[in-house]
Amino acid sequence: MPKSTTRLEHDLLGDREVPTAAYYGVHTLRALENFPITGISIAVYPDLIRALAQIKKAAAQANQKLGLLDAKRADAIVAACREVIDGQWHDQFVVDVIQGGAGTSTNMNANEVIANRALEILGCERGDYKTLHPNEHVNMSQSTNDVYPTALKLATYVGIFRLVDAMAYLRKAFERKADEFADVLKMGRTQLQDAVPMTLGQEFSTYAVMLGEDEERLKEAALLIREMNLGATAIGTGINAHPDYAPLVCRKLAEVSGVPVVTAPNLIEATQDCGSFVQLSGVLKRVAVKLSKVCNDLRLLSSGPRAGFNEINLPPRQAGSSIMPGKVNPVIPEVVNQIAFEVIGNDSTVTFAAEAGQLQLNAFEPIIAHSLFKSALHLTNGCKVLADHCVNGITANRDLLRESVERSIGIVTALNPYIGYANATEVAAEAFRSGRGVAEVVIERGLMSPEQLAEVLRPEVLTRPQLIPQSVAA
Amino acid sequence: MPKSTTRLEHDLLGDREVPTAAYYGVHTLRALENFPITGISIAVYPDLIRALAQIKKAAAQANQKLGLLDAKRADAIVAACREVIDGQWHDQFVVDVIQGGAGTSTNMNANEVIANRALEILGCERGDYKTLHPNEHVNMSQSTNDVYPTALKLATYVGIFRLVDAMAYLRKAFERKADEFADVLKMGRTQLQDAVPMTLGQEFSTYAVMLGEDEERLKEAALLIREMNLGATAIGTGINAHPDYAPLVCRKLAEVSGVPVVTAPNLIEATQDCGSFVQLSGVLKRVAVKLSKVCNDLRLLSSGPRAGFNEINLPPRQAGSSIMPGKVNPVIPEVVNQIAFEVIGNDSTVTFAAEAGQLQLNAFEPIIAHSLFKSALHLTNGCKVLADHCVNGITANRDLLRESVERSIGIVTALNPYIGYANATEVAAEAFRSGRGVAEVVIERGLMSPEQLAEVLRPEVLTRPQLIPQSVAA
Amino acid sequence: MPKSTTRLEHDLLGDREVPTAAYYGVHTLRALENFPITGISIAVYPDLIRALAQIKKAAAQANQKLGLLDAKRADAIVAACREVIDGQWHDQFVVDVIQGGAGTSTNMNANEVIANRALEILGCERGDYKTLHPNEHVNMSQSTNDVYPTALKLATYVGIFRLVDAMAYLRKAFERKADEFADVLKMGRTQLQDAVPMTLGQEFSTYAVMLGEDEERLKEAALLIREMNLGATAIGTGINAHPDYAPLVCRKLAEVSGVPVVTAPNLIEATQDCGSFVQLSGVLKRVAVKLSKVCNDLRLLSSGPRAGFNEINLPPRQAGSSIMPGKVNPVIPEVVNQIAFEVIGNDSTVTFAAEAGQLQLNAFEPIIAHSLFKSALHLTNGCKVLADHCVNGITANRDLLRESVERSIGIVTALNPYIGYANATEVAAEAFRSGRGVAEVVIERGLMSPEQLAEVLRPEVLTRPQLIPQSVAA
Amino acid sequence: MPKSTTRLEHDLLGDREVPTAAYYGVHTLRALENFPITGISIAVYPDLIRALAQIKKAAAQANQKLGLLDAKRADAIVAACREVIDGQWHDQFVVDVIQGGAGTSTNMNANEVIANRALEILGCERGDYKTLHPNEHVNMSQSTNDVYPTALKLATYVGIFRLVDAMAYLRKAFERKADEFADVLKMGRTQLQDAVPMTLGQEFSTYAVMLGEDEERLKEAALLIREMNLGATAIGTGINAHPDYAPLVCRKLAEVSGVPVVTAPNLIEATQDCGSFVQLSGVLKRVAVKLSKVCNDLRLLSSGPRAGFNEINLPPRQAGSSIMPGKVNPVIPEVVNQIAFEVIGNDSTVTFAAEAGQLQLNAFEPIIAHSLFKSALHLTNGCKVLADHCVNGITANRDLLRESVERSIGIVTALNPYIGYANATEVAAEAFRSGRGVAEVVIERGLMSPEQLAEVLRPEVLTRPQLIPQSVAA
Repeated sequence: MPKSTTRLEHDLLGDREVPTAAYYGVHTLRALENFPITGISIAVYPDLIRALAQIKKAAAQANQKLGLLDAKRADAIVAACREVIDGQWHDQFVVDVIQGGAGTSTNMNANEVIANRALEILGCERGDYKTLHPNEHVNMSQSTNDVYPTALKLATYVGIFRLVDAMAYLRKAFERKADEFADVLKMGRTQLQDAVPMTLGQEFSTYAVMLGEDEERLKEAALLIREMNLGATAIGTGINAHPDYAPLVCRKLAEVSGVPVVTAPNLIEATQDCGSFVQLSGVLKRVAVKLSKVCNDLRLLSSGPRAGFNEINLPPRQAGSSIMPGKVNPVIPEVVNQIAFEVIGNDSTVTFAAEAGQLQLNAFEPIIAHSLFKSALHLTNGCKVLADHCVNGITANRDLLRESVERSIGIVTALNPYIGYANATEVAAEAFRSGRGVAEVVIERGLMSPEQLAEVLRPEVLTRPQLIPQSVAA
Repeated sequence: MPKSTTRLEHDLLGDREVPTAAYYGVHTLRALENFPITGISIAVYPDLIRALAQIKKAAAQANQKLGLLDAKRADAIVAACREVIDGQWHDQFVVDVIQGGAGTSTNMNANEVIANRALEILGCERGDYKTLHPNEHVNMSQSTNDVYPTALKLATYVGIFRLVDAMAYLRKAFERKADEFADVLKMGRTQLQDAVPMTLGQEFSTYAVMLGEDEERLKEAALLIREMNLGATAIGTGINAHPDYAPLVCRKLAEVSGVPVVTAPNLIEATQDCGSFVQLSGVLKRVAVKLSKVCNDLRLLSSGPRAGFNEINLPPRQAGSSIMPGKVNPVIPEVVNQIAFEVIGNDSTVTFAAEAGQLQLNAFEPIIAHSLFKSALHLTNGCKVLADHCVNGITANRDLLRESVERSIGIVTALNPYIGYANATEVAAEAFRSGRGVAEVVIERGLMSPEQLAEVLRPEVLTRPQLIPQSVAA
Repeated sequence: MPKSTTRLEHDLLGDREVPTAAYYGVHTLRALENFPITGISIAVYPDLIRALAQIKKAAAQANQKLGLLDAKRADAIVAACREVIDGQWHDQFVVDVIQGGAGTSTNMNANEVIANRALEILGCERGDYKTLHPNEHVNMSQSTNDVYPTALKLATYVGIFRLVDAMAYLRKAFERKADEFADVLKMGRTQLQDAVPMTLGQEFSTYAVMLGEDEERLKEAALLIREMNLGATAIGTGINAHPDYAPLVCRKLAEVSGVPVVTAPNLIEATQDCGSFVQLSGVLKRVAVKLSKVCNDLRLLSSGPRAGFNEINLPPRQAGSSIMPGKVNPVIPEVVNQIAFEVIGNDSTVTFAAEAGQLQLNAFEPIIAHSLFKSALHLTNGCKVLADHCVNGITANRDLLRESVERSIGIVTALNPYIGYANATEVAAEAFRSGRGVAEVVIERGLMSPEQLAEVLRPEVLTRPQLIPQSVAA
Repeated sequence: MPKSTTRLEHDLLGDREVPTAAYYGVHTLRALENFPITGISIAVYPDLIRALAQIKKAAAQANQKLGLLDAKRADAIVAACREVIDGQWHDQFVVDVIQGGAGTSTNMNANEVIANRALEILGCERGDYKTLHPNEHVNMSQSTNDVYPTALKLATYVGIFRLVDAMAYLRKAFERKADEFADVLKMGRTQLQDAVPMTLGQEFSTYAVMLGEDEERLKEAALLIREMNLGATAIGTGINAHPDYAPLVCRKLAEVSGVPVVTAPNLIEATQDCGSFVQLSGVLKRVAVKLSKVCNDLRLLSSGPRAGFNEINLPPRQAGSSIMPGKVNPVIPEVVNQIAFEVIGNDSTVTFAAEAGQLQLNAFEPIIAHSLFKSALHLTNGCKVLADHCVNGITANRDLLRESVERSIGIVTALNPYIGYANATEVAAEAFRSGRGVAEVVIERGLMSPEQLAEVLRPEVLTRPQLIPQSVAA
């Protein structure tokens, strides 16, 4: 007799055939039918799958310790979870990234896969739920409403620190360039109009400082996100949970995951609240806004080569046109700009979803998670390519930059203390009229000697606060 | 001698080995290295791949007709395009959905795949670009800056009409329910407070009307999106293009694609403008906002079963909880809500990307396309599941609804013309105080007979404008 | 005996003293206490106040014609409305622009002011509601739920056409500049990199075309917004309204307002739907996005004067700095950019408010109205100042622009048909290496004569599609 | 000879007549003409006017101490600033809240008003700038680019703490209600479906906890916002500033303002960066999202009175309808919802404006400030009215809530440990079928005694984790 290719499972809607080969079960099958939305399964987020398995492992250990789960089942669950944590069976996490049900299908998918793998480990058949049940044993003392947000937070926490690392990597690339360009004088600009001189090193160093600040903000937001509601069960009252379960499973989860999770002080509030997601999304938006500004600057400073600013050169990465021979475009900053725009849009989505929570639960956490995961992942990749394929290879057009300062009218600001505001104004007007440089006019008029001028126009003098020599200022 | 597994290709950055098996070439390879962002390739959007091939086919036909391309090459290109249009070789479109370069990599990917397939058709080796060149021949008279936006518009057009169909499908589901519930009287509500009676049929019919309106708005937006800039070449001036090329390729493209494309009156404007994408995204947001409102209503009306509105029953689709036996949740409306939130976020992304265009081009169209494609696709899937898995199976709790009208105080509004405003006010107050129904109080006070009351409270009287009988009104 | 400074009014919460001098009454007084939010009253939107009076006037005329309102009262109401339409008593519309209650307070404010002014016209005292009642007579056959959205739509319609006029005014300014600069050759740019030549006239003409398109889109959105739900009463069923009232009051309102209003086909849908507001907001966002892009371009093209693009000069409008003598900034485009950012934010607000509608009404139309009114008004003002204070005074740096084309490498694209792609590539490389112009290299190499080159580089040849002379192409 | 009504002032654009009575001067006049956008002047933000005066005062003191400004002028400036800080002359701050020029007009307006008032104090005429000059003396060692962002941050800091106070006030109102309702058992709900019991006190206490968390987040964001760039001058290099000026003026400003300001470590970064504004806006959005969720809950819980949840009663604040006698609406939560929607829109505006910064400055801080000021002010007012006019007067429908638990099916979850999962399932099914209560069925079936049941259904047992009695669990 040929072996059947399906097994029969049962839920509150009735009986269903599940493929024998599947580790997932009937609840996952229903979700597959209910949510054919994106065609992308949650397996694209391995951090999430691992987080689910870490929680199930911690819960099994806690339940065993509290005498609620026998050692045989606990050991099998723990062993199955360990495999998932190590990267196995992720292809069995098949529910869509956009799903209704407040994450129930994701939790059910995890319960079923872990249960069936544990059954195998126990030497039983998949589907032998009398021996080990997805809900009774794998999900013991849990509810989707505490497991799911906890898993999202664990996965987000990991993703955020991966982003922080990528930002530090990019920051260091900017720091190296800031050093390299420390002595390259150039015109600073406000409102796109020539202002006063600065060094290209100072300009690049601001990007490094900006990234460093954002790393700190992300770490602060991550601290908030590690506060979890595991032990809340259905709505946060902890109904049917052992009084010692919440603190115990928290300790176990910290061990299992390596993440310093803490239990929220008010579990009812923590179960319905999406504040830490909104906060984090806001900080990711902040990161995006500033990365986008940096990329806008890089594209502007490298505009040209002839009819643009042409101050720096981005390393060429690919042909820019099939019509125009030799055209090269700033493709790496451009892709980072677009990641930023995506992240900003994701923040809108998170905001909407968070606001839509009602009473004791927010049913829309799946789209919040999908949005945050994408934002963190794409920003991480964006920071890396920006460092590797762009910033590291930037060169400066030093001659042109020096000339632009010499030709500038803005430089006259620095001469105020030496030649007086009235003379400075006349010099500026004459330079603008004639198209000549300020220095040339100053020397011509005998207001300063070339040596004096060279002294005053040294980068280290022009680009920081300074005491005006008494003899001059008088 | 073993056959090499790679072939050598060349671009302005130098030589590169490309896998022999690949239909794409060196430009695509560079893009793969430059944009490891999402891990999702443009092949997830078959409409886009088909649109690219349709354009390349139309261009080859136009170029041949203008005497710019010989028949042999033209025929091979057309044959290769036909295969892509029929669904072949999509796996060779490997560049990331988020990419820099204003779509150049997508266009290059198309040129290379089509060229190499055409070479095979000609009996040549892949990479034999002297015989048929991706840029010289497949891309002839074209530029990324006209091909790419045109392809996006074609693909969007197709996706929008697929959405319109799905919306019509959902609309009809609501219309059937509106008929089914035409005689079910219930309380209407404003600001979540009981207002005046209406029928459940009227309530469901508004959802159908709303969808019908949105279908019209989408069709209008689609009309705008079929205006294309093919023939613009680099910046819209048509540099190096034959004066007859633009109108000719437009006619060809209309034939090839079946989409009634038109050429924009000002190609320079059309090349840099993203107005029609922003407009369309705004309309998609409108659709999302209203679908979300409908789903909010469905979830509210089916809240309960005991401690809620409990007016309608959504068909159960999956178990709602592992803790609470029998709990079933409105998972289908919930997933549609989340699609709506995603679409709203996508609109933010589109807005940002459109605003960031500079001078003669918007370099950020790839993220605009990615956002619009997702929005249209997910809304399409959302409308279908909402119809199939939810609306079609909705039932009404007719007894409870009838009672809620009878027990309501709001019903007193309809009695104003019969018992006078003063009496009505007293009846309302007494009903509220005592917790009784208005009808009971009216009859008790002898203000109207049970027969009169039954007449006035008929659905067809309560739920539309009416003439007050003279005898009564007097 | 001194005259009392207050009069006693009554509502369902009890008795309240209202200042005798006030035309508004107890309901307005409650709203003043309930909504101390912005400190800005609805009187800042005169279009809204006029629209309310137009509706009250049309309703009084319709009610009189249907025999529901006697001539004496109708005439007094009509006379009072006429005064409000002419700009009187607007200071009596005191409720906050952000208010709860779905606009009830705005409608009540209008009813009370008009009733009390009508009472004066009748020779009665303010507050003598037995003679003429705000709700019974001024609000007859109406409900806030049909009056308020109708008033918003009327006011919006007027504001949109005022914006369309301002956009046409700005468009003409760009058209004049496009003519003025028709022969000014310059480099076009894609992705901020030099591309191929165009004229400055072509560049400015795209801004005109863009505005013209947006005018059309606004007019289309305005057509949708003139569809009103007057006659719907409480929830759209028309309860207690005369069957002839809806069509009659629509005709009257069209006469009174001059706006070609139509009645929505389904009044229940129209009462709860905010689709036309979302659509309009989306189009306003489109206008904002594109205006912002234009302003970005203007600021970029005028960047410098030395270390920037320096292609055009914006008229100086004010001193740009207290430190830097002679610095002038592009303050007018900058203010328009900021208006655009505000409009985009307003669109988010509208989207949120529209999505939050529930069942038979959207209670959040006040914030929708506030957002749309601001957007239309500020964009109108922005277009005017951009035309008057910026575009009209723009001048071109013709010599520099000509030089930039001559110095450009991009120009080589146009020589492809004459010297061949291979030669063109070598010329481009040599020009880039040596920092010289393409023309210089071409002449030096004897590839073309200065006369040929001059012919090919004529603006009218470079900046449009062209037939390549047979003799050359061969 | 009649006294002239104007005085002549001069700037780089030429001469202009300024009204003699005006304390502002020619720069302000230009701005008035350039920015007729909203008609609302910056005087609507007294915190901003005060902050400007505090900075000017601190700068004058620092300049005097550094020997750059003589005592006579310094004293006059300090005296004038003190008056502005005390609330005088605010009507002279007339520039529009939306303005180009990166805040230059606001800074100029402040310089001119303070200079002219200082001149009066010195016994001189307004406009006698040879004696005391707006730019030379009032603006000494400053630039708009450091003064303006610093003023925004000071004003924002003050506004945020005012909001924190209002939130604490609202939080306490919720805490009092949580106490009052501590023993009121009700059904908790997830996904709008009946879940398990909780107390109304627990429900209200989550709102208090949520507010408390948001207060903390706001305080953290405020800490970031007190980091200022005063001393940066034009672009952050401190050009023309005394090396000791930056730390000195910071100390003075802390004294003058009472705000613990600190100087940013990198002034070039701080001058161009808007990160702290984006961060703060994100936190304000978080506050808005959660306040909106609370208001949604309040409106839902008070829906009815007959055909809704009807669990709580909001205090009636005004008549809800002119048609329906006795209708009262949740107008206070509704207005807070709308404030939230506005704040969310403002966040979009801030995001756009922040991203648009270029190179050494963000020119769009005026719209950022306008957005943040509105958000903080309206949220502050919203929290107060929500406490005073809504939360404080909420009452519970205790009988109905108790009944809803008794009638619920969800209660069966709590019986699992006592009657077993199989029995529980049968009881649930029977209750649902028959429309009866779970308790009734359990007693009827003899599964538990009424006494046992009463014990298990005690609020303190149902609404928290608990040990199952050994005898029972066995």
